[in-house]
Amino acid sequence: MVTNTVAIDAMSGDFGPRVIIPSTLQYLQGNPGTRVVFVGKTDAIEPLINRRFAHRVDVVHASEIIGMDEVPSQALRHKKDSSIHVAVDLVKNGLASACLSAGNTGALMGVSKIKLRTIDGVDRPAICGAVPSLESHSYLLDMGANVDCSAEHLLQFAIMASVMARALDGKVSPTVALLNNGEEDTKGNHQVKEASELLAAKECLNYIGFIEGHRIFEAVADIIVCDGFVGNIALKASEGVATYIMDKIRKEIKSDPVTRLLSWFAIPEFRRVSSKVDPRRLNGAVLLGLKGVVVKSHGHADQLAFGYALEYAYRMLSVDIVSQLDQEFQSLV
Amino acid sequence: MVTNTVAIDAMSGDFGPRVIIPSTLQYLQGNPGTRVVFVGKTDAIEPLINRRFAHRVDVVHASEIIGMDEVPSQALRHKKDSSIHVAVDLVKNGLASACLSAGNTGALMGVSKIKLRTIDGVDRPAICGAVPSLESHSYLLDMGANVDCSAEHLLQFAIMASVMARALDGKVSPTVALLNNGEEDTKGNHQVKEASELLAAKECLNYIGFIEGHRIFEAVADIIVCDGFVGNIALKASEGVATYIMDKIRKEIKSDPVTRLLSWFAIPEFRRVSSKVDPRRLNGAVLLGLKGVVVKSHGHADQLAFGYALEYAYRMLSVDIVSQLDQEFQSLV
Repeated sequence: MVTNTVAIDAMSGDFGPRVIIPSTLQYLQGNPGTRVVFVGKTDAIEPLINRRFAHRVDVVHASEIIGMDEVPSQALRHKKDSSIHVAVDLVKNGLASACLSAGNTGALMGVSKIKLRTIDGVDRPAICGAVPSLESHSYLLDMGANVDCSAEHLLQFAIMASVMARALDGKVSPTVALLNNGEEDTKGNHQVKEASELLAAKECLNYIGFIEGHRIFEAVADIIVCDGFVGNIALKASEGVATYIMDKIRKEIKSDPVTRLLSWFAIPEFRRVSSKVDPRRLNGAVLLGLKGVVVKSHGHADQLAFGYALEYAYRMLSVDIVSQLDQEFQSLV
Repeated sequence: MVTNTVAIDAMSGDFGPRVIIPSTLQYLQGNPGTRVVFVGKTDAIEPLINRRFAHRVDVVHASEIIGMDEVPSQALRHKKDSSIHVAVDLVKNGLASACLSAGNTGALMGVSKIKLRTIDGVDRPAICGAVPSLESHSYLLDMGANVDCSAEHLLQFAIMASVMARALDGKVSPTVALLNNGEEDTKGNHQVKEASELLAAKECLNYIGFIEGHRIFEAVADIIVCDGFVGNIALKASEGVATYIMDKIRKEIKSDPVTRLLSWFAIPEFRRVSSKVDPRRLNGAVLLGLKGVVVKSHGHADQLAFGYALEYAYRMLSVDIVSQLDQEFQSLV
């Protein structure tokens, strides 16, 4: 296994090679000893690679691209030479140790499940990423892979993320909360109530109970568990309201000569403040539960954001997350 | 029926009478012809009522208060003289035409269902409120009343909100979307996929398909339908991220002398901008589907926000929402 090589789906995301390749090269520059394999259309990729990095970069051709809006099940069957298929194959065949894509999430998950398979004891991999708070972060899963989940699935998500928080952040006993519509025991739908009993009974977990949606960004728990339908909607709603607020503020500032003038003076400072609120720093979510490291970048990721997702992939490799998950689930049998 | 009288649960919300009473009196001052009945502990309410308004205000005593964190089912049974019980009774007995509370949502819904009952054809009332966008708003329901919903329930929610959007905003054929984890037909959990078929087949609805969470605040549909579990979490997550962003911006501004100085000059302008982003203008959600108008204010509502919820109650009365809903559901039988 080549433990420092990440296979990168260069054709993915809203911007493709022209963002992914410079972003990756910048990462390589700052991180000696790392290597990548770009996967995709050779003629689109090779011209963008600076010769300085030639010895740390390989290119593997893939003739097809799965579009962001394609139906995953069909793409899986009919586009077997897609950049996603080929990149995941590199991990499967030991030619890369992780795969990173900003592409179609459903297709990435589908291909990864088929080719890499899930760790024994895990029924379904989940998408797990970090959500910010003022001083820290929490891991939230599932961010959208599994829209219909049983309580048992949520339990497995909690165990997987606990392993991850221990490995990545050195938390001895990371706290786990279930996302719910209230904090009292009586609150919740059937699925969440049942999951709460399972989590409370599991000795390997530090389960602290329910949390409500407004506390997702307060780091009240190291891990927040929900099904993929709810996780997807919670995150996208948050994204939507953040855009709404920033657009509204910009519009109001522009509509008034005094604020327009003040904001002009404050442009460099405003940029600095904005960069601290920047969600790009937390770009990257791992498809947790596979026999291989697969990381998903946001489709809209720019150069900076994509670099963070790549860093996330290397962090997963550095702690050998797959072995740690495997050990945990074998110990529970 | 006294069509201009709203029964107000004066003991409710985080601040109780000291916010609710001045807010209400201010509303009365600006709206001649309106009347209210304050419900709660007489000795807490009466000293706060300015004599000028004495002829437009009644006070009805209720000896108990249902706490925000009390289990609704228990409060329903054991606190029959609560301000919620008494306020809803006034509507039931025709002594008020609407009820407004900032209290325990579950208890308000429970008491209202028992005392007022649901409109024929409606299985479950839903909580419906407006969410902002840059130029407009959408109605979102269910905001949290029904955590386990069938597709048929979601269909009823869509019909109810369509009646409301027609009545309140004069939309001839309001558009309806289902909240989902993707916009393609293949996306969604079982419940949403089934509901999509029901909505598409219903002639009285202008169903436009799925929308994702990040578009909740873009007014892409007049009405956004989801179950109460998802609606609650989407809204609370939005609230959480809004707080996070504003706190983060404040913290970063304070940490730098230049922005601190600029922001000092900009305070009045900043306030003006903030007021435009202010979610308090959309405070107030109606418990739609009851044989009576019951409006819920946010528990954190301050004087300004509570006033908007009161206005919302009067708007519901002005369009006689209950009769309109009743007619619609009878026409569908």
